[in-house]
Amino acid sequence: MSEDFRQQALDYHSLPVPGKISVELTKPANTVDDLALAYSPGVAEPVREIAQDADNVYKYTAKGNMVAVITNGTAILGLGNLGPLASKPVMEGKSLLFKRFAGIDSIDIEVKHRTIDEFVDTVANIADTFGGINLEDIKAPDCFEIEQRLIERCNVPVFHDDQHGTAIVTAAGMLNALELQGKDIGEAVIVCLGAGAAAIACMELLIKCGAQREKIYMLDRKGVIHTRRDDINEYKQLFANNTDKRTLEDVIAGADIFVGVSGPDLLAPEALALMAENPIVFACSNPDPEIKPALAHQVRQDLIMGTGRSDYPNQVNNVLCFPFIFRGALDVRASQINDEMKLAAVNAIRELAKEPVPQSVLDASGVSHLAFGREYIIPKPMDPRLLPRVAKAVAQAAIDSGVARIEMPMGYMEV
Amino acid sequence: MSEDFRQQALDYHSLPVPGKISVELTKPANTVDDLALAYSPGVAEPVREIAQDADNVYKYTAKGNMVAVITNGTAILGLGNLGPLASKPVMEGKSLLFKRFAGIDSIDIEVKHRTIDEFVDTVANIADTFGGINLEDIKAPDCFEIEQRLIERCNVPVFHDDQHGTAIVTAAGMLNALELQGKDIGEAVIVCLGAGAAAIACMELLIKCGAQREKIYMLDRKGVIHTRRDDINEYKQLFANNTDKRTLEDVIAGADIFVGVSGPDLLAPEALALMAENPIVFACSNPDPEIKPALAHQVRQDLIMGTGRSDYPNQVNNVLCFPFIFRGALDVRASQINDEMKLAAVNAIRELAKEPVPQSVLDASGVSHLAFGREYIIPKPMDPRLLPRVAKAVAQAAIDSGVARIEMPMGYMEV
Repeated sequence: MSEDFRQQALDYHSLPVPGKISVELTKPANTVDDLALAYSPGVAEPVREIAQDADNVYKYTAKGNMVAVITNGTAILGLGNLGPLASKPVMEGKSLLFKRFAGIDSIDIEVKHRTIDEFVDTVANIADTFGGINLEDIKAPDCFEIEQRLIERCNVPVFHDDQHGTAIVTAAGMLNALELQGKDIGEAVIVCLGAGAAAIACMELLIKCGAQREKIYMLDRKGVIHTRRDDINEYKQLFANNTDKRTLEDVIAGADIFVGVSGPDLLAPEALALMAENPIVFACSNPDPEIKPALAHQVRQDLIMGTGRSDYPNQVNNVLCFPFIFRGALDVRASQINDEMKLAAVNAIRELAKEPVPQSVLDASGVSHLAFGREYIIPKPMDPRLLPRVAKAVAQAAIDSGVARIEMPMGYMEV
Repeated sequence: MSEDFRQQALDYHSLPVPGKISVELTKPANTVDDLALAYSPGVAEPVREIAQDADNVYKYTAKGNMVAVITNGTAILGLGNLGPLASKPVMEGKSLLFKRFAGIDSIDIEVKHRTIDEFVDTVANIADTFGGINLEDIKAPDCFEIEQRLIERCNVPVFHDDQHGTAIVTAAGMLNALELQGKDIGEAVIVCLGAGAAAIACMELLIKCGAQREKIYMLDRKGVIHTRRDDINEYKQLFANNTDKRTLEDVIAGADIFVGVSGPDLLAPEALALMAENPIVFACSNPDPEIKPALAHQVRQDLIMGTGRSDYPNQVNNVLCFPFIFRGALDVRASQINDEMKLAAVNAIRELAKEPVPQSVLDASGVSHLAFGREYIIPKPMDPRLLPRVAKAVAQAAIDSGVARIEMPMGYMEV
């Protein structure tokens, strides 16, 4: 990162006011009469209505459009465990994206971290404040238990974006790449380099999309996760492959798919050369991918490739999903974000990439041409069609799967 | 409350959007370049800066201007223990007032309540998210222990407004009333009807302003709190008077001051008639005071009276204090709101009432004339001079008492 960009980023965060979000009023508060409605004595009326019927909280307060972005700061971006306070710019950034892309009011909450129990209790105790909870930057394997326990305890959707947002966008792009390469996901041999939260969630969702668990080879820092290892947690255990293969080189030979959520330059060109015909590589390490696209395409002309970066084609970017999956969940007051809703998001994102791209999206994305194909398997983040399409698909899936608590909003009918 | 006003209040809260607050962006977020600064990769820079020096969180995030309004819903207005969810309109209303009067970003947090320990842990765990914490609508005596423990555990100011906001405004008005009645606070006999959070805080602050503890008679539902009662908690115990008097009638005879934080019509005109010459009555029960002003003035022409209502003179209204005491505390990054700062707020509010009132304040307050005297001992909530005056006084007191962490902002010099 250049010194110039570094300074720009710091200035952006500090000038003219510190941070990126503020709280504003949606109602008049100028006159004595306004304030008599907003606070005492008028405010007693909505209080009584909510005390009589808890659902009225959605009618008289901002809860229904408010998502908390909550972290303990144990896995900030790729920077590691820097603590809750240092994570604040990232969490505010997430709130900014919620607002920018889906009109969702979002506030960050940084939680001091001693034990999983205490973190879960803290979040569960404040959960009713919000319409939904987006967990963020919590290290694996804690994040799995934390999310599961919070889903059980909270009355509003809880979604760990590092897992599921990444998984949904990866799956959408992957299904399109498989279609273009003429491959069947049920037959595909998949190598997943990395065994953290995102890796495990990606593989679980690909399995729900038809991938075979036994055809997946997951690797952590010690190599292939196999059934004879006794040093792996219960979440990795689910991917323990009954195999004699031990290294990336062992498993990459003949593989159809490589998903990297690991570190820079960990996929050597020689390894890529060993993959099956028409391979698919999602090298999502950020900012530096597991293999640079130019090099990869040199080695394999039959490749379809995605990365985590906006300056290469096929960016796997969570922002394609999380604002819209929450938008859909909030709009039908879903009690959770279930698999049906996640799969609906996968399909909506996937299908949008197959449609003609409006000029405005090209302009906003800084490209001259986009058409479904090897260099365009995933929509661009600046595509305004994502909001109505993904949100509606998610809302419909919530209704169909029985977790919606209100009907589809009128506005969705026109989408 | 009329049906018409009731409907207006409900409509205000539900239309055109539910609730009263939203989260907005303070930085551009339109282009791909904007987002590269706001989120990945640019956001890593402020994260690193904060990880190196925690104080940088005030430079690069919204923390320094963000106050959480936190409750467990155990004492909502005068409505009682209706639970955290039902309290949400009140908490959002408080956030609205913070923004409206002091430009403070404020968000409400409703906390599920099992034990005091769990409430304190929950709030302490999320406290670093905010620049300050305003506790609200927590029942006595829990509120005393909760506030004290949170002050000890949190690195930011913690302030229970129901106690101290009420106490500060009461003290400001009372000192002016005493001056007008030609009485010495150290000699005054004080009757306090009510023994909850506000009552105890008011009396404690009046003692810091010079009142004598042994001249105070506090009454709860069972009558005078005296040294031979064994049914009183440790906080009431501080006001146990070594007296044979048992009833309001017993203690009101010859009293100089009556402070009511109890219920409607509990001060009979016959009791008021027994008070000393030039009495002072603050009948703060809301919406219906302990005695109606018209009736009270009929009985005692030598009376100075305040209430909690905006439609009578001398409204004792917390909004004269809490936005500005937090404004001052935030602006010098005070680690706490100590007694020196509270007393500075008392004096600043008190002194403002002695100054000529600008026409704009008369217009906003809907009155034709205001001059320091029996009907104007406390500034009007719509007085824009409160913000600079009270905030500066509080900030200066924080500096002088050694709890400020940065210097007085430049803007204050001109106040």
